Amino acid sequence: MKIKDFLCEQWMTKYENDAVYNMTDTSFQALSLKELVSLDEAALEDVVLDYGEIYGDKQLRREILKLYAHGSIDEITCFPGALNANQHVMDVLLEPGDHVIAFVPGYQQFYEYPRSLGCEVSLVSYQEKLDWMFDWEELENSFCANTKMIVMGSPSNPTGTTLSAAHWDRLIGLCRERGIYILCDEVYRGLDLEQTPSVSDLYERGISCSSLSKIFSLPGLRLGWVKADKRIIDDLNVRRDYTMISTGPLSDRLGIAALRNKEVILKRNREMLARNQQALKEWLRKNDAFSVVCSPLSPVAFLHYSMNMGSVELCERLLQECGVFFVPGSCFKTENYVRLGMGRSCGDFEKGLSVLSKWSNEALKKV
Amino acid sequence: MKIKDFLCEQWMTKYENDAVYNMTDTSFQALSLKELVSLDEAALEDVVLDYGEIYGDKQLRREILKLYAHGSIDEITCFPGALNANQHVMDVLLEPGDHVIAFVPGYQQFYEYPRSLGCEVSLVSYQEKLDWMFDWEELENSFCANTKMIVMGSPSNPTGTTLSAAHWDRLIGLCRERGIYILCDEVYRGLDLEQTPSVSDLYERGISCSSLSKIFSLPGLRLGWVKADKRIIDDLNVRRDYTMISTGPLSDRLGIAALRNKEVILKRNREMLARNQQALKEWLRKNDAFSVVCSPLSPVAFLHYSMNMGSVELCERLLQECGVFFVPGSCFKTENYVRLGMGRSCGDFEKGLSVLSKWSNEALKKV
Repeated sequence: MKIKDFLCEQWMTKYENDAVYNMTDTSFQALSLKELVSLDEAALEDVVLDYGEIYGDKQLRREILKLYAHGSIDEITCFPGALNANQHVMDVLLEPGDHVIAFVPGYQQFYEYPRSLGCEVSLVSYQEKLDWMFDWEELENSFCANTKMIVMGSPSNPTGTTLSAAHWDRLIGLCRERGIYILCDEVYRGLDLEQTPSVSDLYERGISCSSLSKIFSLPGLRLGWVKADKRIIDDLNVRRDYTMISTGPLSDRLGIAALRNKEVILKRNREMLARNQQALKEWLRKNDAFSVVCSPLSPVAFLHYSMNMGSVELCERLLQECGVFFVPGSCFKTENYVRLGMGRSCGDFEKGLSVLSKWSNEALKKV
Repeated sequence: MKIKDFLCEQWMTKYENDAVYNMTDTSFQALSLKELVSLDEAALEDVVLDYGEIYGDKQLRREILKLYAHGSIDEITCFPGALNANQHVMDVLLEPGDHVIAFVPGYQQFYEYPRSLGCEVSLVSYQEKLDWMFDWEELENSFCANTKMIVMGSPSNPTGTTLSAAHWDRLIGLCRERGIYILCDEVYRGLDLEQTPSVSDLYERGISCSSLSKIFSLPGLRLGWVKADKRIIDDLNVRRDYTMISTGPLSDRLGIAALRNKEVILKRNREMLARNQQALKEWLRKNDAFSVVCSPLSPVAFLHYSMNMGSVELCERLLQECGVFFVPGSCFKTENYVRLGMGRSCGDFEKGLSVLSKWSNEALKKV
């Protein structure tokens, strides 16, 4: 199956190790194993490194279930990361010739992966003038007779677009009458615990994928999941036998420890985000070449800059000349933007902003 | 994408937790985390649970490389298990309409997964009368103008078929002149360290997939890899961005610990296998309703029974009536066989054989 280069991920792989100030990673600062185990000293006791429970440890699925308003553990199945969960959902539900709707600027998997499966994909725009919401008329005009699925994120990467309960009502209304699935990558959802709705709680064809990689600061566990109607979960569990078997008892046990102590981790991350967003706000007042629409519960945003410079050149020069690391807007086919991650440790984030303003003031003088 | 039920894996998931004597699992008895860490007390020090190196920790890939005769770490990339590695290789190299050759009785992924991608698959038989080798003429007759890949295991599951250096020469000769890839799942290879050849060392279109799940007793790490020509590895690394990112630093670090101490683990498992095969040999002398062709370096074999009973009925009754657990031959579309795993702890294996003979003697009396 042919697939295009994943521009954002390739940029990350190529450059992230050179970063002094990583201003673009969308995960909250990762926890060490020691920090995680300090939350539950018994987490690693008596772990046997066999396959473990195939769909994910039942205790783990019970803890995951608490992130949702309702459901059962039979409506949850675990995968190595949300990306892998998304892939499995698309593999199971999509067929060549199906029509899919995704949003741009958005995460490339959501439209290129369906294309690689032989689906036709329509792209609807997130618009900055609408605070990065989409235009409902544009969405409605994109529906076709064979539209099978909407693939999206909420909060979305890189725009931070977060659907409210009212938005969900309206979107689900449009999809329900047409029998369309909504696959929503919800890895950035839940920083406020139960306040932000999950599509899987609202809609019988709503499929929520998430993981411990972003708001729980644990990408190293490679632990994600799908919550959806049991018939979809059953189909996913048929396919997993061909692709990955289980997530394994080591990640599962550490995942249980993390979720049982989620208030501690989420409080740390909410505070980090609030402080970084406050620093950003103050910084923007003094740096009018930059502007951003921020969602208070999203660690990711799309930072606009007004300098007359391509985003690749800007990002390469920033990294080489002062160690400030961004993913360029070009990776999301949108110029004059860079992806901003606001979940890194506060000192580094503030220092990164300060280095960025110094560099851009110098650069602006020369332009 | 439609895919058929994976019969063997579904049987395992459904019944394995009811087993008293697991006589069918093909992994060597899993190590506990404690046992693994006792081999390298520093293994878990300073692990930060971030994404880690995307293609797998370089030290890990250096240790993996030592399992092969030659190559470089750029010819290795890591995935969560060999099953996942196989999937990625097929996703990258196969297109709808390609012709694929696989062997039966064999692992269902090798022929159903290509079918799910729209490939046409020819099945060549492993024959017990040939000590579970295939017939070369049958293989040659199955080549087509559009044959793209042979998918196989060596040692293979469930027959234990292991290609010798001479077999590989002949097979590679046939494939090289036709430009055919050989994807070989080598998860059961290497118990004798460097003695058994790997296809990736012998053939420029040879792709070796393996993992720590079988002969290294560590399925719980979910750590597999591909070794192949760098161009194939590069294509796999494009696709991983859409499917799984990385295996993560926790598994990578524990994988390094395991491979640095592989002699200890493999010695334990060679001794376990030798003792279990000796016990089996003695048992077979007294139980002439059973027979088996065993490869001395394969923990998996296909056990024949002469009782007039379907393999599903036999396996269900054995499990219910005396706790002895087998996967029935029907899961490999071959009756009068069960899959035998010989890598479990010796006491349990010998007890399982003894319970099996008692049960089958009773059952034979009634027939």
